[in-house]
Amino acid sequence: MPAASADHTAFVPQALARVRADAPLVQCLTNSVVTGFTANVLLALGASPAMVDIPDEAGPFARIASGVLINLGTPHAEQRSAMTEAARAATSAGTPWVLDPVAVGALPVRTALAQELLELRPAVIRGNASEIIALTGAGDGGRGVDSSDDVAAAEESARELARRTGCVVAVSGPVDFVTDGGRSARIANGDALLTRVTGGGCALGAVMAAFAAVDEDRFATTVAAVAAYTVAAELAAKEASGPGTFAVAFLDALAALEEADLSERAALS
Amino acid sequence: MPAASADHTAFVPQALARVRADAPLVQCLTNSVVTGFTANVLLALGASPAMVDIPDEAGPFARIASGVLINLGTPHAEQRSAMTEAARAATSAGTPWVLDPVAVGALPVRTALAQELLELRPAVIRGNASEIIALTGAGDGGRGVDSSDDVAAAEESARELARRTGCVVAVSGPVDFVTDGGRSARIANGDALLTRVTGGGCALGAVMAAFAAVDEDRFATTVAAVAAYTVAAELAAKEASGPGTFAVAFLDALAALEEADLSERAALS
Amino acid sequence: MPAASADHTAFVPQALARVRADAPLVQCLTNSVVTGFTANVLLALGASPAMVDIPDEAGPFARIASGVLINLGTPHAEQRSAMTEAARAATSAGTPWVLDPVAVGALPVRTALAQELLELRPAVIRGNASEIIALTGAGDGGRGVDSSDDVAAAEESARELARRTGCVVAVSGPVDFVTDGGRSARIANGDALLTRVTGGGCALGAVMAAFAAVDEDRFATTVAAVAAYTVAAELAAKEASGPGTFAVAFLDALAALEEADLSERAALS
Repeated sequence: MPAASADHTAFVPQALARVRADAPLVQCLTNSVVTGFTANVLLALGASPAMVDIPDEAGPFARIASGVLINLGTPHAEQRSAMTEAARAATSAGTPWVLDPVAVGALPVRTALAQELLELRPAVIRGNASEIIALTGAGDGGRGVDSSDDVAAAEESARELARRTGCVVAVSGPVDFVTDGGRSARIANGDALLTRVTGGGCALGAVMAAFAAVDEDRFATTVAAVAAYTVAAELAAKEASGPGTFAVAFLDALAALEEADLSERAALS
Repeated sequence: MPAASADHTAFVPQALARVRADAPLVQCLTNSVVTGFTANVLLALGASPAMVDIPDEAGPFARIASGVLINLGTPHAEQRSAMTEAARAATSAGTPWVLDPVAVGALPVRTALAQELLELRPAVIRGNASEIIALTGAGDGGRGVDSSDDVAAAEESARELARRTGCVVAVSGPVDFVTDGGRSARIANGDALLTRVTGGGCALGAVMAAFAAVDEDRFATTVAAVAAYTVAAELAAKEASGPGTFAVAFLDALAALEEADLSERAALS
Repeated sequence: MPAASADHTAFVPQALARVRADAPLVQCLTNSVVTGFTANVLLALGASPAMVDIPDEAGPFARIASGVLINLGTPHAEQRSAMTEAARAATSAGTPWVLDPVAVGALPVRTALAQELLELRPAVIRGNASEIIALTGAGDGGRGVDSSDDVAAAEESARELARRTGCVVAVSGPVDFVTDGGRSARIANGDALLTRVTGGGCALGAVMAAFAAVDEDRFATTVAAVAAYTVAAELAAKEASGPGTFAVAFLDALAALEEADLSERAALS
């Protein structure tokens, strides 16, 4: 799809500019491991994080948020309740929301929850290959948070999931894959150090929610989110001497990211 | 109030020295996003953090802690229960405690909780302009954790709240404002990067609890806490190339902060 | 024990190599303050973290995990339930697990829980001197998370606890002490900056769980875990100008740690 790719290449820097201009308010119901890092990624990008994840607050807030992330990494009972409340309110209010089904398939509580949330119509689903395959009913979700499948193996599952649900589906890996069932794109940016930092994938889900807030075309905004995030990772890796310095440099790189960096570096196909 | 300011300017470095000498034990019942950063800020400063926030432990611990922070950022049910228990025990035992009413006014559960906690007599209330205005019953608390009002607009609300409750009230912003209803001070230190790091405001509440432990004059200790914190932020900003390196440099700067830095740089009026 | 020490000195780099080759899956049920740092330490080391800590998932996961950490820092009700479930499943499946009884003795809920978990046969118990003394029934656990006792004072308690329970017991401090009741070792590495970073001790418990996965001799793997961790801390301290840069450099040092660093630097006796 060379034509689509050219369009998206042009859209990526525009989308970043809009995120910075709008400073979208991104509500995160996410796991306890990555809350701080996720908030810092959103702040570095120019978005505004709000981790509102308790019942009776999550729903009302989802109505006024610009975008919502629901990440199933550590789904305690009270948070599960807030998640369905937020998903329902977001869908009803037209707030785009991203579902990150961490370790779905491998673990029972979140697997049931993921199926329930799928019915509530996320705008975007983000996972690794094993998670996306598990969501379609095949595979077992890998061993916890790691993917034991590769992205190419998940492409057909991703397309099927996108067609069945009407969501955009993004598969994270060395080369990322995004599809809405019809259109699809591969983004060949990033750095392996991103997998050595906890929240490297989870925070991308929050960034997808921020980008989803700036345009109705969620396939395009998801591609843009992946490209911006992984180009920043490439730039950060140049400054890093290990996972510790990488995580720090990544936040600096997100804050310093220029539209020209994306025009020059985003490797879409 | 030039005389008062001169006193406070002299008190700031003394208060820092006392915090380091006493290593106050600061109990934090705070939000899930900033727990790690808050503990690291207290450790860097020379205080001793303890995040004891479950029922049946929070109360007993508040009796022996040097100071307590209660931050309403992600108030899950069990933590809410621990918060009222800790506040009650702290007040009864004479342990000074700081209330940080994150996003009060904008969200129902914490708004009710904040009113309940106000009755239990915090020593200090810290918030942004929107939160302080919302606590007095005016305004709507802004959009989540950001302030949509400026500090100057909140000064009268802060004074009124201080007089009504007998608390010291601190309003965070580009120029911070602290009042006990009678006395007031402005602290013009800090750096905008502090707003690009999650917990930049929340950890200040914990620092106020540490300083409150070293002197009975909580107006003076709160001014000193703000000055020490924001002067460290200024020094860190010189070393930083973005929000990632700033957060790291800020912890180093807190640990390296000298009394002379405060004498030279604290901009009180 | 010079012979034992010589063996252990040779085993330390071998154990590190095995951790990296096997990438053990380490399930952590840990406190809310240090989850992110703990995951990043495991990732830097080459292990694979999974923070599965809810009922109905914690038990099944403990059966397939390579090792489990149970840390009592912030034991909310739902997590307590997941902890006993995970401990039971781990012991039944032969998965080695580490108990970190944070602030036991000083606080009632976790003290009762620690005694219940002790019955479920951890492979390793890690604590500071006050915590180990408190677990044996003497002392009061110090003031929260800090140790008010020194390691030497805890050695006899550690030996007694190891003999009574059949666990390996590790006491953290300037010189670490590890015993299985019969054998014992002291590890004189590390840096004081490790005590200025939250999770400095807690993440070591997770590293012990990773090392416990690679050999049946849990006395040897625990000594190796302490040596690898504290040698990395020494190397990191050379690069650090304070606690902020230290925490970052520590993650880089863990990732870059070479077997030769351990052969040259591990100070076992």
